Amino acid sequence: MTDQSITHTTGGELRDPRITRVTAGDIVRRAGNRRPDKDAFVVPATDERVSFGEFDDRVNRAANAFLESGLASRDRLAIVAANSLEFLEAYFGALKAGLVVVPINPEITTDDVGYELDHASVDALVVEDTYYPKFEGVFEERDLETLAVIEWSDEGTVPVPEFRAFASEHDAAEPEVELEGSDLAQIMFTSGTTSRPKGVCLPHRALHAGSINNVVGGEVSRNDVKCGLLPMFHCAMLSQVKAVLHVSARMVILRGFEPNQFLECVETYAVTDVTLLPSMYTELLARDDIRDRDLSSLRRCTYAMTPIGNETLAECIEVFGAEFSLGSGQTEAYPPTCTYHPEWQLEKEGNYWGTALPNTDIAIMDDDGQLLSDGEVGEIVYRGPNVMDGYLENEERTREAFAHGWFHSGDVGYFDEDGLLKFVDRKTDMVKTGGENVSTQKVESVLLDHSDVDEVAVVGIPHERWGEAVTAFAVSYGDDPDPDDVLEYARGTLAGFETPKAVEFLAELPQTATSKVQKHVVSENHEDYYR
Amino acid sequence: MTDQSITHTTGGELRDPRITRVTAGDIVRRAGNRRPDKDAFVVPATDERVSFGEFDDRVNRAANAFLESGLASRDRLAIVAANSLEFLEAYFGALKAGLVVVPINPEITTDDVGYELDHASVDALVVEDTYYPKFEGVFEERDLETLAVIEWSDEGTVPVPEFRAFASEHDAAEPEVELEGSDLAQIMFTSGTTSRPKGVCLPHRALHAGSINNVVGGEVSRNDVKCGLLPMFHCAMLSQVKAVLHVSARMVILRGFEPNQFLECVETYAVTDVTLLPSMYTELLARDDIRDRDLSSLRRCTYAMTPIGNETLAECIEVFGAEFSLGSGQTEAYPPTCTYHPEWQLEKEGNYWGTALPNTDIAIMDDDGQLLSDGEVGEIVYRGPNVMDGYLENEERTREAFAHGWFHSGDVGYFDEDGLLKFVDRKTDMVKTGGENVSTQKVESVLLDHSDVDEVAVVGIPHERWGEAVTAFAVSYGDDPDPDDVLEYARGTLAGFETPKAVEFLAELPQTATSKVQKHVVSENHEDYYR
Repeated sequence: MTDQSITHTTGGELRDPRITRVTAGDIVRRAGNRRPDKDAFVVPATDERVSFGEFDDRVNRAANAFLESGLASRDRLAIVAANSLEFLEAYFGALKAGLVVVPINPEITTDDVGYELDHASVDALVVEDTYYPKFEGVFEERDLETLAVIEWSDEGTVPVPEFRAFASEHDAAEPEVELEGSDLAQIMFTSGTTSRPKGVCLPHRALHAGSINNVVGGEVSRNDVKCGLLPMFHCAMLSQVKAVLHVSARMVILRGFEPNQFLECVETYAVTDVTLLPSMYTELLARDDIRDRDLSSLRRCTYAMTPIGNETLAECIEVFGAEFSLGSGQTEAYPPTCTYHPEWQLEKEGNYWGTALPNTDIAIMDDDGQLLSDGEVGEIVYRGPNVMDGYLENEERTREAFAHGWFHSGDVGYFDEDGLLKFVDRKTDMVKTGGENVSTQKVESVLLDHSDVDEVAVVGIPHERWGEAVTAFAVSYGDDPDPDDVLEYARGTLAGFETPKAVEFLAELPQTATSKVQKHVVSENHEDYYR
Repeated sequence: MTDQSITHTTGGELRDPRITRVTAGDIVRRAGNRRPDKDAFVVPATDERVSFGEFDDRVNRAANAFLESGLASRDRLAIVAANSLEFLEAYFGALKAGLVVVPINPEITTDDVGYELDHASVDALVVEDTYYPKFEGVFEERDLETLAVIEWSDEGTVPVPEFRAFASEHDAAEPEVELEGSDLAQIMFTSGTTSRPKGVCLPHRALHAGSINNVVGGEVSRNDVKCGLLPMFHCAMLSQVKAVLHVSARMVILRGFEPNQFLECVETYAVTDVTLLPSMYTELLARDDIRDRDLSSLRRCTYAMTPIGNETLAECIEVFGAEFSLGSGQTEAYPPTCTYHPEWQLEKEGNYWGTALPNTDIAIMDDDGQLLSDGEVGEIVYRGPNVMDGYLENEERTREAFAHGWFHSGDVGYFDEDGLLKFVDRKTDMVKTGGENVSTQKVESVLLDHSDVDEVAVVGIPHERWGEAVTAFAVSYGDDPDPDDVLEYARGTLAGFETPKAVEFLAELPQTATSKVQKHVVSENHEDYYR
């Protein structure tokens, strides 16, 4: 109806872009200004606590240190470390400097770390001293500079400045960097279905949107004290940290899950909010002293990755005296994407993911790109500002992932009669074990290099502790194949979590007419293998 | 360090823009898909309730009806109506169609409505029948088509299709419209106490970010039942509606504040969450039956615009049995921007706004663009994705509003020793006299305590010695008010520089349509007072 030339005043020309941008650094600065004196992070292991204001200052110092070390905005910084406060200072410092952060899982092989460093075109490193000797050769081969080490162990001396010494002399004012929500913030590697991990490119916008989902999904409030013990090199934990910053809550940072330490942490710091893997809850339940511990501060217990059986769950709810909920997500759609809320727990059986969070659409799609109705099984697809830009330098996989105008998760599921999302299976052959994704194809290709292994199917078999246990069913054309020898070989080549929990030799593997191994039949035939 | 030509895969080319966009329509669709069968809105007056799924369908029908009526994306639709479900259907329908919504306050004069329709280049209208006769001439003069009327009264017949009849035959599938978070979503007019109303241009991004602030500020959860009675043509209510949709809560829609109706609403629908003006709480407190009413469902009471004195507030907290908090914001920074949380209530006296919400930075700035420290008084400035694009076709005011890289609120305040934001006055209501800043609001509140003063406007009038002289123009409902007596009283209560240089009694003060005193008219009428 109107002349389309009628325009409104747009901020494009008149407004400083910093006024309305959405970046990860904004989250830290706002938290620092909102409650400068409140404790943000507490680290029992080092007896350290830092306020939101001091944390923001440290992050700014790190940002300025990175920029003054010669790195420029858009350069890539890898962090090779386990959980620590310094990890977070380096991480957010890099983001404020406009660098792209590449968090590296330090438990993977040197070969894989080398691949990730090359693929992400990493320019510089921050490394925890514990892992430095393992990867020193990898860094040297690439002539990659380690700018600083995070000191955790006291053993040995790494010939690199300690992180705090590296950063602390620099200005505590936030550097002025041109940055928008659409700019690349981090590259995270997912264990691929092919032998090599894919780099997931996440812009600042996705980090912000996913962590807002976290606030809503977990109903995180300023009065909460979270216990953070999942690894910071995965995005679930990084999203939780941002949620804590968004609402000025608090987080007690642990190195990992150690039951005594965890229980002391809950008691000492009046923790209200924890996120653990199901195996961790069951391990806690099994303790003799669990009912004598003071868990009264707990308000919300989240579990992730795999479901908890209803019998165990009922015991959890009673023993921990808290609401339980399941959060789910994946690196490509910065987590969480959905929550299975407390009021639904115990109502149903199976791997329910619940409903979508505010920044995410979830639908079910068939192979032709048609969206399906409730009850119909298909691929879980997402839309939302928490979705990645694409896979690093992989147009083909990116195009596939974004087919038909949605992001394809690779997970198969359906919405039940109450509109709740239920996970059925991975579309490809991934095993989720102890919080890690393992590509069965990768493990198979390693095992096939062993002289005793002529055919092999690696599958995930239900396991009380691991959720799924990576398990290899093999055929040997020779005499007397030795499972232990194969296992030992695997241990030397694969990461601990990738190494099969068992290798079993069979006379033959079930096959399709076209001689493809029917892995789902192998799984079904052995589903009681660990029971 | 790296060759800057190394790029990552960007979604720009490979990703459908719908995957990561942030629009107001997304909020409605996600709510519809998340809990399709849950009641979203309840309207006691018409005994109507609508589920989230049905609401999304109706919004889609309205969107398709608008597009098929000849409107095109980017056209402007004015809504002239009080609260109703149809208001929300028209509002979100227009947003899903890519139209720009112009909500008009139907209580203002026909002259002002004409001005707003012209200034916003409105193309078509949705009007409530109650207001149609008042504005019919205004619409006809402009040859503006009323597409549909919202039927509220049963009186008379408006020769235009009823809104539901207009929309209901259309497709319930969401229209495919090219839309981004940066696209203009609504133009809202701010009541000008200083000039003609200005059109505030808000993109979809701002509506989304402000309503996320609302979720966090009010800790709105899926189990909440809000009572919505503030006018939908203001953004506070529109932000609340979006918060309800974000988390699948529920809202009972009232036409306005009528104490009996309000109390029945709380009792009938187990309302957990209300936002009222302070005067409404005091009106409720004064009722004989207030302690006999069942208000046990109330969890959170928010007040806005002005503070509540601590004595009254303590009584409120006791009688309503709920947590109280203050929310603040303004149209230009889609509200809320901050919350004065329950734990701080009663701790301090005065108009405290508390702390910033996740999507907003707040700082204090002096006239030279320097950010000030805690304790220093200056203009409250904002950054965040909830900030507007600018003022409609007003480059000069937009440029002023965005000076020094922040949005200038026109509010004066400071952060106290605990880091809590305290509002002092409107900047335009500050008088600079003999080197001191004087809050006219403070002087007015003192003068109103004098028995001869029933209405008062304190303004700065040009003065040879003082620059501006604090001057009071008052109205007395009694006989023979004595200016000297008022002056003497002021001297005993105010600082010397705050005490008016003169008190002048007038027959009446000029007012806006919404009964706000037009202080700029008072100033203009008396600019030669000291000459």
